[in-house]
Amino acid sequence: MVLADHAYGKSGVRLVQVTRSGDRHTLRDFTIAIAFEGDYAASYVDGKNSDVLPTDTMKNTVYALAAREQNLVAEPFALALASHFLDTNAELASVRIDVEQHLWERLTVDGHEQGQAFQRRGPETRTARVIARRDRTEVAAGVADLVIMKTGHSAFSAFKRDTFTTLPETRDRLLATSMTATWHYATSSTAFEPAWHAVRRTLLETFARHESESVQHTLYAMGEAVLDALADVTDIHIVMPNRHHLPVDLRPFGGENRNEIFVATTEPFGVIEAAIRRG
Amino acid sequence: MVLADHAYGKSGVRLVQVTRSGDRHTLRDFTIAIAFEGDYAASYVDGKNSDVLPTDTMKNTVYALAAREQNLVAEPFALALASHFLDTNAELASVRIDVEQHLWERLTVDGHEQGQAFQRRGPETRTARVIARRDRTEVAAGVADLVIMKTGHSAFSAFKRDTFTTLPETRDRLLATSMTATWHYATSSTAFEPAWHAVRRTLLETFARHESESVQHTLYAMGEAVLDALADVTDIHIVMPNRHHLPVDLRPFGGENRNEIFVATTEPFGVIEAAIRRG
Amino acid sequence: MVLADHAYGKSGVRLVQVTRSGDRHTLRDFTIAIAFEGDYAASYVDGKNSDVLPTDTMKNTVYALAAREQNLVAEPFALALASHFLDTNAELASVRIDVEQHLWERLTVDGHEQGQAFQRRGPETRTARVIARRDRTEVAAGVADLVIMKTGHSAFSAFKRDTFTTLPETRDRLLATSMTATWHYATSSTAFEPAWHAVRRTLLETFARHESESVQHTLYAMGEAVLDALADVTDIHIVMPNRHHLPVDLRPFGGENRNEIFVATTEPFGVIEAAIRRG
Amino acid sequence: MVLADHAYGKSGVRLVQVTRSGDRHTLRDFTIAIAFEGDYAASYVDGKNSDVLPTDTMKNTVYALAAREQNLVAEPFALALASHFLDTNAELASVRIDVEQHLWERLTVDGHEQGQAFQRRGPETRTARVIARRDRTEVAAGVADLVIMKTGHSAFSAFKRDTFTTLPETRDRLLATSMTATWHYATSSTAFEPAWHAVRRTLLETFARHESESVQHTLYAMGEAVLDALADVTDIHIVMPNRHHLPVDLRPFGGENRNEIFVATTEPFGVIEAAIRRG
Repeated sequence: MVLADHAYGKSGVRLVQVTRSGDRHTLRDFTIAIAFEGDYAASYVDGKNSDVLPTDTMKNTVYALAAREQNLVAEPFALALASHFLDTNAELASVRIDVEQHLWERLTVDGHEQGQAFQRRGPETRTARVIARRDRTEVAAGVADLVIMKTGHSAFSAFKRDTFTTLPETRDRLLATSMTATWHYATSSTAFEPAWHAVRRTLLETFARHESESVQHTLYAMGEAVLDALADVTDIHIVMPNRHHLPVDLRPFGGENRNEIFVATTEPFGVIEAAIRRG
Repeated sequence: MVLADHAYGKSGVRLVQVTRSGDRHTLRDFTIAIAFEGDYAASYVDGKNSDVLPTDTMKNTVYALAAREQNLVAEPFALALASHFLDTNAELASVRIDVEQHLWERLTVDGHEQGQAFQRRGPETRTARVIARRDRTEVAAGVADLVIMKTGHSAFSAFKRDTFTTLPETRDRLLATSMTATWHYATSSTAFEPAWHAVRRTLLETFARHESESVQHTLYAMGEAVLDALADVTDIHIVMPNRHHLPVDLRPFGGENRNEIFVATTEPFGVIEAAIRRG
Repeated sequence: MVLADHAYGKSGVRLVQVTRSGDRHTLRDFTIAIAFEGDYAASYVDGKNSDVLPTDTMKNTVYALAAREQNLVAEPFALALASHFLDTNAELASVRIDVEQHLWERLTVDGHEQGQAFQRRGPETRTARVIARRDRTEVAAGVADLVIMKTGHSAFSAFKRDTFTTLPETRDRLLATSMTATWHYATSSTAFEPAWHAVRRTLLETFARHESESVQHTLYAMGEAVLDALADVTDIHIVMPNRHHLPVDLRPFGGENRNEIFVATTEPFGVIEAAIRRG
Repeated sequence: MVLADHAYGKSGVRLVQVTRSGDRHTLRDFTIAIAFEGDYAASYVDGKNSDVLPTDTMKNTVYALAAREQNLVAEPFALALASHFLDTNAELASVRIDVEQHLWERLTVDGHEQGQAFQRRGPETRTARVIARRDRTEVAAGVADLVIMKTGHSAFSAFKRDTFTTLPETRDRLLATSMTATWHYATSSTAFEPAWHAVRRTLLETFARHESESVQHTLYAMGEAVLDALADVTDIHIVMPNRHHLPVDLRPFGGENRNEIFVATTEPFGVIEAAIRRG
């Protein structure tokens, strides 16, 4: 028997940080996961735990390091966690830190922001992933579950047909998705906050503007636009499940089909994905 | 044996409507539930279905009626469905229509709204409920799963203690909730769109401004503010689960507790609820 | 303004108890919710907490009382909690205790039960609810999310039709549901363990045996059978969502429809419910 | 720009098959996902769909092929789907078929199985995955979400400590997990039904019997036992999230800690995983 790939860690570490600047508070809301890879075979094969840092300690470390900095930003905080673990665990070959950031926006009173009250904005989350090894570190950022829809400029036609194909062609369909995108930065010293906002805006603007022949077509245009716009981004991976909205046939009820009434479906769903990188 | 309360109907009817006004589309996204109460004992006791309108037909009716109107609004559409069912089903004593509206906002390109592209806004949803009987009709509206947080102006102290009480008092805690509120309108002819926005704004502004001694205290202030602001609202029921954010004790890690680092918890959770009405 | 119905409490209290009898352990796994109703207006209206027992204390009480007894049973434990709260809170008019029991079965090794290893059995859960007031106490038990299916002896035909009806009649359809049932006991001193098993067995056997003309028809037969079989049960409330399984039309793919191939759907779904009691 | 890895397909295809053998029916309940990889760049880059088989057709194919065989078994059915798609799509380099099987057991009446009534058994599901390329095919099987617990014979001690470690050592802890395991078969002609049951039984018996020093230790023993028992299995990958059950400290409530009362937690959770293969 051989112990092949193995990893252990802690997931679902919930961290909320409040930074107070006078009357105006800043809120950070993260769910963090940590995974260790390295020389841990003895714990699996022999039940010998002497090199095993408890996952409970990984969780404690998140809180201990979070308290050292105000206004945490996902990517630098993940980098700090990764450095700490590499520095203090000789057995560790590679550590992965995943951060999911839950987004909040400020509440307003009489048109002005109230500095200490917030509303959750979702289902979209912001993500970051750092994979740190002894000799190199990767930094990725992303958005997850960004639910978007086009009600125009979307077609699907001239596709391949076989004996089981029944789908009608259409030059005017709804295109809805819950997009997840992840991109890598060329360096660990990118200006992460503005970069994230720029990528997100580029994705959404391209989605809105695109003359879509398919989900594939729009997905590629979105990824290409990000690489065009941000020199710091080396590649991007996008997953776009196709949340089908099917026109309801109103003729059995004495109605006319004007492409206005749809049923939103959850199952089955298409899944389209691709990575795009610089050539 | 006696057949006591009984009801049947269709839930989870997904309806998406696109209304096109030139380049600018309007999007409505509803999940609808219908429940019939009335003289249906024969179907239960004798397996006699002659008075049972299939729930599949209820679903068809949603689509058929939706196609008759553009830019659907939740409350009038629910009223139209209820009237239709009462008119066409003599056995029906009471029909309940529940509408959950999934909210979308427009995407912008270069700072301008693009008329045919949308982003889902959540987890909040808008709700409406109509209960129509032969002699009277109730119209309710609401918000569900509106996740909000106060990072200041929130305390919980001077509470009752018993032998099992270990909770420390605090004059500065995080208060977070996923609020659900439902209110009734005095008439079926309210201006439902502006009323809904006014109630929602009043709830949020009061939450943001309140000097909170407890969830109960803030909940009541929110409900009272709604009744003060909108003469058309007869009563409001608010449920505010207390999504506890607990300060992490950093002293075991060599840190200092400055009320900045919290763990967000999902279980267990407090639940506070109340109805407030005009006296 | 009037503060009308109001309640507060703790939900999601997770309690796992291990009772060791030599090599053989017993496992109890509960999620408990507590709700207080009574004279708590001052906390809502004035932010005065002096009569408010913290919900954190309610949670502590669950653990403190659980430790006093081995092999906890849902109904008596809920009764003990309710009594404790009524005894120690003068303001309390009514307390509701909900218990959801997650079910486990023993693992076997070489055909024999291993006394300290278990597998979760679900999605079904067992439920109990006690509502205790100063002058009387109700005890209810139940099953939730019991997913069952009949592939024969199920029809739906001779139903009412209107202008929007398109559903075909069938004398042979799949009937699937995720049943939730709740029943009341006449006294607080029922033999709760055997009673629960007897009700559950009666529900399942009746479901399996019934010649079904509709969900309504089968639901009523199931409730009636429980009241027939158990003198201690005063009434039962059953909810049976209809999880539709639709025959796939295979003719467009060159196939023949033999009522063998179905698509399981989640939305929309029928909902059928009724209470049955002794006359 | 370069289009790197890309795939498209259909997920969430729900298929239920009833096979009737006299009074005794067999029920199969699958959720199927299909993913195509191959020469599909033109659809992404140019919006040219001529080689794109619609995902709707993939779904239709599932139903069409399902109707050709009775008593479907997950692995051979996935192999048949994969062959069909490779045969009919020249652009296709690799196709992945994932099958999740929802498990049902027969209901009994008076101690005898009723042939046409079933109860869902879960949360556990059975899984199968086929990846077919032009030159070779991989067949994997698995179990997912198998929730198991040991209340004895489980320790975690003598682990590494650092400055943030606060976890106490224990020689007697609860070990609970929701296991997911996937294993590969050496050939496409394994007796898949008995093999799946044998692997599952081996996993559970080893879990029940093991003297556990950690999740890692037990996970490895389980994998090793499977490879020992089944010559047809080439490797196995096991993921065991650690669903922590923490002893409640009863001393603040006047109680004594006897390791009997626990709180089950969902967040944070450990994650332990490894692949084990023949050397």
